[in-house]
Amino acid sequence: MEYRKMGRTGLQLSALSFGSWVTFHKQINDGIADELMGIAYDNGINFFDNAEAYALGESEKMMGRVLKSKGWDRTSYVLSSKAYFGWRGKNNKPNQTGLSRKHLTEACHEALQRLQTDYLDLYFCHRPDKSTPIEEVVLTMNTLINQGKILYWGTSEWSGVEIMEAHRIARDYRIIGPSVEQPQYNLFERNKLENEYLEIFKNVGMGTTIWSPLASGLLTGKYNNGIPEDSRLSIEGFEWLKDRILVSDKIEKAKQLTALAQTLGISVAALSIAWVLKNPNVTTAILGATKTQQLNDNLKALDVLPMLNHEIMDKIEGIVNNKPHLAEF
Amino acid sequence: MEYRKMGRTGLQLSALSFGSWVTFHKQINDGIADELMGIAYDNGINFFDNAEAYALGESEKMMGRVLKSKGWDRTSYVLSSKAYFGWRGKNNKPNQTGLSRKHLTEACHEALQRLQTDYLDLYFCHRPDKSTPIEEVVLTMNTLINQGKILYWGTSEWSGVEIMEAHRIARDYRIIGPSVEQPQYNLFERNKLENEYLEIFKNVGMGTTIWSPLASGLLTGKYNNGIPEDSRLSIEGFEWLKDRILVSDKIEKAKQLTALAQTLGISVAALSIAWVLKNPNVTTAILGATKTQQLNDNLKALDVLPMLNHEIMDKIEGIVNNKPHLAEF
Amino acid sequence: MEYRKMGRTGLQLSALSFGSWVTFHKQINDGIADELMGIAYDNGINFFDNAEAYALGESEKMMGRVLKSKGWDRTSYVLSSKAYFGWRGKNNKPNQTGLSRKHLTEACHEALQRLQTDYLDLYFCHRPDKSTPIEEVVLTMNTLINQGKILYWGTSEWSGVEIMEAHRIARDYRIIGPSVEQPQYNLFERNKLENEYLEIFKNVGMGTTIWSPLASGLLTGKYNNGIPEDSRLSIEGFEWLKDRILVSDKIEKAKQLTALAQTLGISVAALSIAWVLKNPNVTTAILGATKTQQLNDNLKALDVLPMLNHEIMDKIEGIVNNKPHLAEF
Amino acid sequence: MEYRKMGRTGLQLSALSFGSWVTFHKQINDGIADELMGIAYDNGINFFDNAEAYALGESEKMMGRVLKSKGWDRTSYVLSSKAYFGWRGKNNKPNQTGLSRKHLTEACHEALQRLQTDYLDLYFCHRPDKSTPIEEVVLTMNTLINQGKILYWGTSEWSGVEIMEAHRIARDYRIIGPSVEQPQYNLFERNKLENEYLEIFKNVGMGTTIWSPLASGLLTGKYNNGIPEDSRLSIEGFEWLKDRILVSDKIEKAKQLTALAQTLGISVAALSIAWVLKNPNVTTAILGATKTQQLNDNLKALDVLPMLNHEIMDKIEGIVNNKPHLAEF
Repeated sequence: MEYRKMGRTGLQLSALSFGSWVTFHKQINDGIADELMGIAYDNGINFFDNAEAYALGESEKMMGRVLKSKGWDRTSYVLSSKAYFGWRGKNNKPNQTGLSRKHLTEACHEALQRLQTDYLDLYFCHRPDKSTPIEEVVLTMNTLINQGKILYWGTSEWSGVEIMEAHRIARDYRIIGPSVEQPQYNLFERNKLENEYLEIFKNVGMGTTIWSPLASGLLTGKYNNGIPEDSRLSIEGFEWLKDRILVSDKIEKAKQLTALAQTLGISVAALSIAWVLKNPNVTTAILGATKTQQLNDNLKALDVLPMLNHEIMDKIEGIVNNKPHLAEF
Repeated sequence: MEYRKMGRTGLQLSALSFGSWVTFHKQINDGIADELMGIAYDNGINFFDNAEAYALGESEKMMGRVLKSKGWDRTSYVLSSKAYFGWRGKNNKPNQTGLSRKHLTEACHEALQRLQTDYLDLYFCHRPDKSTPIEEVVLTMNTLINQGKILYWGTSEWSGVEIMEAHRIARDYRIIGPSVEQPQYNLFERNKLENEYLEIFKNVGMGTTIWSPLASGLLTGKYNNGIPEDSRLSIEGFEWLKDRILVSDKIEKAKQLTALAQTLGISVAALSIAWVLKNPNVTTAILGATKTQQLNDNLKALDVLPMLNHEIMDKIEGIVNNKPHLAEF
Repeated sequence: MEYRKMGRTGLQLSALSFGSWVTFHKQINDGIADELMGIAYDNGINFFDNAEAYALGESEKMMGRVLKSKGWDRTSYVLSSKAYFGWRGKNNKPNQTGLSRKHLTEACHEALQRLQTDYLDLYFCHRPDKSTPIEEVVLTMNTLINQGKILYWGTSEWSGVEIMEAHRIARDYRIIGPSVEQPQYNLFERNKLENEYLEIFKNVGMGTTIWSPLASGLLTGKYNNGIPEDSRLSIEGFEWLKDRILVSDKIEKAKQLTALAQTLGISVAALSIAWVLKNPNVTTAILGATKTQQLNDNLKALDVLPMLNHEIMDKIEGIVNNKPHLAEF
Repeated sequence: MEYRKMGRTGLQLSALSFGSWVTFHKQINDGIADELMGIAYDNGINFFDNAEAYALGESEKMMGRVLKSKGWDRTSYVLSSKAYFGWRGKNNKPNQTGLSRKHLTEACHEALQRLQTDYLDLYFCHRPDKSTPIEEVVLTMNTLINQGKILYWGTSEWSGVEIMEAHRIARDYRIIGPSVEQPQYNLFERNKLENEYLEIFKNVGMGTTIWSPLASGLLTGKYNNGIPEDSRLSIEGFEWLKDRILVSDKIEKAKQLTALAQTLGISVAALSIAWVLKNPNVTTAILGATKTQQLNDNLKALDVLPMLNHEIMDKIEGIVNNKPHLAEF
């Protein structure tokens, strides 16, 4: 396994990591989770990602049970959780969502209980909250660090301006700003990593823990012939994903990428994940497998990485043809 | 004339302002410049915009001569200049371009001489300079303020992240950050004002002095039947503008906007400028007329402003159909 | 016993202190450790030095057991530990070494458990970690102080520039920088104390807890006739020390120092330790005895100290002839 | 000519630059100085280095006269001076030397007069002054920047700890610290650039303007057969240099380097200067020629730079055999 420093911190994350997302609880049981996490850990994965929003907390509980039964040294892995997941939490009571000091603090306590641990290594703001001043968020996160409940904090899907506002506040107060962002990044979604965040990486530094490196499965090739009814894409609650990805243009590109992968003797999934890891501003790509076969295949992305020479990268660029346009001055 | 506070400063700018850009020197002589500036001033315009890059300094010299001959009270108007104009200045010697302390300082001295004034009210970084730390820019601008050579400083066409980095540094040092940004904004170019900068306006505040409210003339309707050879768009050096704006789609929309304007009994130019002023985050729209007729017509935008009720705004939106997509959480 | 303020702190350390290093666990058992620490404590030694790297934690466990059995008032002595010991820890998992916030925090928790105490008086970065920003180290140490887990923090074998970077960060954040450095210092290793650190002592102040005042035993005179097989120098893992010190030149000097000591009626070890204490920038010299005889002899260094007048110091300088060259301006 | 950013500033210096040092006034007259500076400028050199100590101010006066007669655009070059030159200034009256606010300020005024300019681009502390707090130095330099008399400030031959103390103070006050250091660096003097300053380059950044890239002429090969009476090395006042460089070991190495240069068809001087430029932490190497032939030859170092591949660099290392030893953790 390859390990990478998370941005400008001293923390090292495995280049591939394991996320439970919605798959835990909804799609798999404790037994499979145990098996998958075992494979991950044995292959050198040291970062396990979670969130309060994943299966409404059940995902964290399942991961907590597995970790307890495994008995691995707590210092040998990195554990995360996240608070607030945008408007989708709005059916909660007023202070059971958002990024106020009350919810951030209470959500942290609850995550610690569900995960059965004394501290989170990483704690994310799962989405920006336009109605809470970022100042309150930064101050609260710093307090949680001082209390020993979390070690580093980050953002997820924040705009570049919002991330910089957090750093501005942190610098003003001389406290600890966000060290890591969890954005989507894959062959179909490139602007943040390759354009909007560039000056952030240069000026203040941020690690990135990538979600959806396979574009919700589109880059596994499994939808090359259409979307079956029993896929994650048709599970209740994910209709919203459909519109975004069901662009026939993307399926066409996925087909071509699949063909390219075949000429290299690898899966399109491994190719796509390796492409994500090729970006030097990526710390880790989060895998969200539900089957051992799938996980083992995705782990091969590390072997694919050295294959991505200029020629192959150019071919990939030729297929997806979506490199972000940078200002020319 | 309507006057607006420039962002969170106490400075008031006329909602319409006068820019010389390349028109000075290349297209008009001192006599016409004198006449145009006279009309502008008499109509209450108090902001005259300039830059070292406009006609390589000749634009500033012409404006300086006119201002001297007019003899207006220096306190009755606001004067700007800008340093550095992106890669297009790279044929200079190494330190005669960019945003280093050396060039920013020397360019300021030179602008003061060309404009025959003791201080600039506004001094802009005309483009971001990726190879000079923003920290050096902010510190230098603050020094120029301390030396009394400039009163406020701003950015032009910086990304939201770059503007926030300037504010982060300014807050860190407890010095004066940028108060104003000069972006392009018009019915065809909306993302920065209506999306990327929103959290900047909310968190730190910035005035905006809009360039190209008429989309390089496209929104005057004069290209509705194609681009003639003698227009500004065909002057040497502006071929680069052609590609951007010669999208037939835009001409089609301009035609529809022209029709809408006619039903209101106004020019499409006045309609387009008024639409820019309707945005509460706009401080002023810079007019760049070369003929008195044109200037007088554009000044009518202020009368049009009250006409822009919800119904008309919806019609305009229906025509241009390019409202930036905001993240939904 | 003489007590000295540790740099610019109010903390007082005995001029001689007791270190367990590798001797604990590998060379001695609980019984001998108990006897040695008893002698030390009874002679007024109040500082007991330890580290996670010493015998892989066993050294701390042994000291913890002895301290518990002794039942001395916790406020009557000063206890230290250290995290990370350079490349020699690299066979651990990624975040189980280095100076990241994760390892510093977890290593502190583990040291507290091994030593069976609620807080460390001193907590050292055992070596610099080039791949973790010093900013993260300083912030983490300050957090541990805020959490009550440590009282002061220090560095060990950091370069002058690294120590100053820590102080720069601490001043920037207005938090607590390192108060103490643990360098090697003896008659054969003088540059840091007598040259590189001088401006540090002058500008920001640092106490020093000296390791190897006897140059790994070379200044005890026991190698004057060569290195026997059963010495600490031949214990597995210490081959690396051999090259450094087995310079015949040093042995020759040790012989001459031994002769000088004999004329004064003292041991060369006591002479050498006293010479270390003569340096006003030394807070304490750490003794690492494995036999009561040896410890009792080294304790006599305090009696030797007053003998070190200008004449004797000049004679010593004449023998070692290695005074660091200072820049002359 | 190649241009390099000076550390983390936006200022660009030519990779080779021109220093007058003692050669001006003592060895050459205005005519030759005019010719040499003309050659330098025409070859793209944009940095002219000077100091109050060089020929007791006569060097600056001569350069000032030449610059005035040349009439080059002031924005096209970078001009420096330096204050205080260590104990050698001690025959002045008390406040006519050192780095007090009084002398730094007065020396700056005098340098501006001698050089006939309104501002210095770079202003150096020529040596550290142990008897003036570095805090006073940093505050004074910042004041000179605010007053527009200097643009950037630097240090020369300061220790790493002293440079970091300046940065610590600058960060504390939120003012401008030193941007550049002027150290000796050549094939015989490597420790500062390749060891002591490394963490400075990494943590705070500093440009370097290298003096004596030819080791006081030793690396020109002209002393390969001994030191003649009329060389600069025997001019009054430079006896102190003799001891340092007249090590026969160095002459032997110079001979071998000369032989290596011959196999490449280049001069040993050009080889030696190119070797200096190969170090990525070097901004510029200052040339101190007294003859046009010599200057033209040294300018060829830029052509030699691409020849320095791994093989040649290894051969050079094999000859000089003096790579600084870095701490191993």
